[in-house]
Amino acid sequence: MSKPYVIGIDLGGQTAKFGIVDARGNVLKQTAIRSNTQNNPEEFINDLAEGIKKLIDKEYSIEDIRGIGVGAPNGNYYTGCIESAANLTWAKNQVVHFADMLKERVGIPVALTNDANAAAVGEMTYGAARGMKNFIMITLGTGVGSGIVINGDVVYGHDGFAGELGHTCAVRNNGRICGCGKTGCLETYASAMGVARTAREIIELTDRKTLLRNIPAENITSKDVFDAAIQGDEVAKDIFAFTGRMLGEKFADFVAFSAPEAIILFGGLTKAGDLIYKPIVESMNLNLVPIWRNKIKVLFSTLNESDAAILGASALAWEI
Amino acid sequence: MSKPYVIGIDLGGQTAKFGIVDARGNVLKQTAIRSNTQNNPEEFINDLAEGIKKLIDKEYSIEDIRGIGVGAPNGNYYTGCIESAANLTWAKNQVVHFADMLKERVGIPVALTNDANAAAVGEMTYGAARGMKNFIMITLGTGVGSGIVINGDVVYGHDGFAGELGHTCAVRNNGRICGCGKTGCLETYASAMGVARTAREIIELTDRKTLLRNIPAENITSKDVFDAAIQGDEVAKDIFAFTGRMLGEKFADFVAFSAPEAIILFGGLTKAGDLIYKPIVESMNLNLVPIWRNKIKVLFSTLNESDAAILGASALAWEI
Repeated sequence: MSKPYVIGIDLGGQTAKFGIVDARGNVLKQTAIRSNTQNNPEEFINDLAEGIKKLIDKEYSIEDIRGIGVGAPNGNYYTGCIESAANLTWAKNQVVHFADMLKERVGIPVALTNDANAAAVGEMTYGAARGMKNFIMITLGTGVGSGIVINGDVVYGHDGFAGELGHTCAVRNNGRICGCGKTGCLETYASAMGVARTAREIIELTDRKTLLRNIPAENITSKDVFDAAIQGDEVAKDIFAFTGRMLGEKFADFVAFSAPEAIILFGGLTKAGDLIYKPIVESMNLNLVPIWRNKIKVLFSTLNESDAAILGASALAWEI
Repeated sequence: MSKPYVIGIDLGGQTAKFGIVDARGNVLKQTAIRSNTQNNPEEFINDLAEGIKKLIDKEYSIEDIRGIGVGAPNGNYYTGCIESAANLTWAKNQVVHFADMLKERVGIPVALTNDANAAAVGEMTYGAARGMKNFIMITLGTGVGSGIVINGDVVYGHDGFAGELGHTCAVRNNGRICGCGKTGCLETYASAMGVARTAREIIELTDRKTLLRNIPAENITSKDVFDAAIQGDEVAKDIFAFTGRMLGEKFADFVAFSAPEAIILFGGLTKAGDLIYKPIVESMNLNLVPIWRNKIKVLFSTLNESDAAILGASALAWEI
């Protein structure tokens, strides 16, 4: 292979992590820059291009890099643009032609998609979905992201924005307010943020005894809930059971859509292990059309979390 | 073109309608046989093969038929089987290798899928979805069927059964019992049967004045509700508004999945026109993630209803 490497960029609200990846999915070298200190897209792209040059340095040659794959919030695969990304200081309320700008600056082809789609490609190329043609990737981070793969291809839809399963309706009436402007979205219940909100609700609305009362309510994080749960705290365990039930209920709908072989879970909340896994599987099966009951695999990602986002993004670059 | 025709078969619980179709989507000749008088699959296939021979007769030649497309309840595209179709007297609780059996009997290649997927292919080939690569077909008949098209291909999923949107959850708690064994499925509210159930519930649970009280509750059909609505009956109009709202709410979830260009509606309930169309569009937009609001087309099928099912099934045969 004349060009044996790709670069993967995981663009987040605070940092951009990027690395050089080989065809076997080894992250050979990685680094990061701040992504919240720039005032406009040009500044950020300049910093990033500098960072990429330093990464390649003398060890590698730009001639050996086949392409760059970027996973970015609100990234549109069709246009290569980042569109109105609220979490990126330099990209709010505007359309940034990110792929074109970076390509021009670095001289290598660039493909871009949103973080969850990048994770799906990574999982298919290097992880738990190797060999699968039909699966759904669900990322349980601050929010709930999703990447849908059908017949081996990520679903982008008519406009490039398909796969917003975090914003399907989990609670029809009197649901929690979501950052997207709607109420009752799955993300408001089943994300790290959602877990913390559930904890605060239980503390405010009930007298149940829980270790979580030792933390000021507004500071509770999903990590605190996890820590309490492994100490045997019943409220904390119930919070994960509730979160899992909400996910499983919606997974049943997702299965009715695309009949995937598996649903693959990635992100912070998966650290809760069986605390969240068991209620997910139980409630999914309870809500599935009988033909699919006990037939759909639910799997945790097998990618090393520190590499996964870079790997996922990099995998896009093989397809340029 | 050496083989200019295909045959489309619309296999229903009472009759099988079939016809010879040309490449422009003209149903040149059609006929029907009973499909509920046979005791086993062999008997039915024999009757059907006889019917096909008579249809071809001396006007056409079997040499000119490129293939046969079948739309059947619980039809599986991958296997060509009809699996446990409750509505087919000769196919209950068994797997019928329909495509293989018919091919052997007639000597022409046979492709088979479920009715809603066939409708989607028909709409894409000859109807409202011509030129579209991403759309969702929703059939509002006795039940609610769906065919999902992504990148120009019908989604069959891992097992061939994808697109059961009628069995996604419309009402989470205390929902209506569905024939599939679950409760709260969209189909229990938004089908012809669902409309009749809503009518009966309103009559039983309220004192509201309505023309529908002139009909014994157990006999009310969606046609009765439609007839009352066009006479200005407020209850009947509310029933369609409710039905449309239930559909629109779920359509918003479907859009979040595959970001289609359009949702296309087919079947008896579409005769209600604006009575159902307006609440669908209103409630869909209310529940959509803002990026899609007012951007997703909702269209009625443009196919002639008496031809549509045959056309849809026949369109499959061009792809064999």
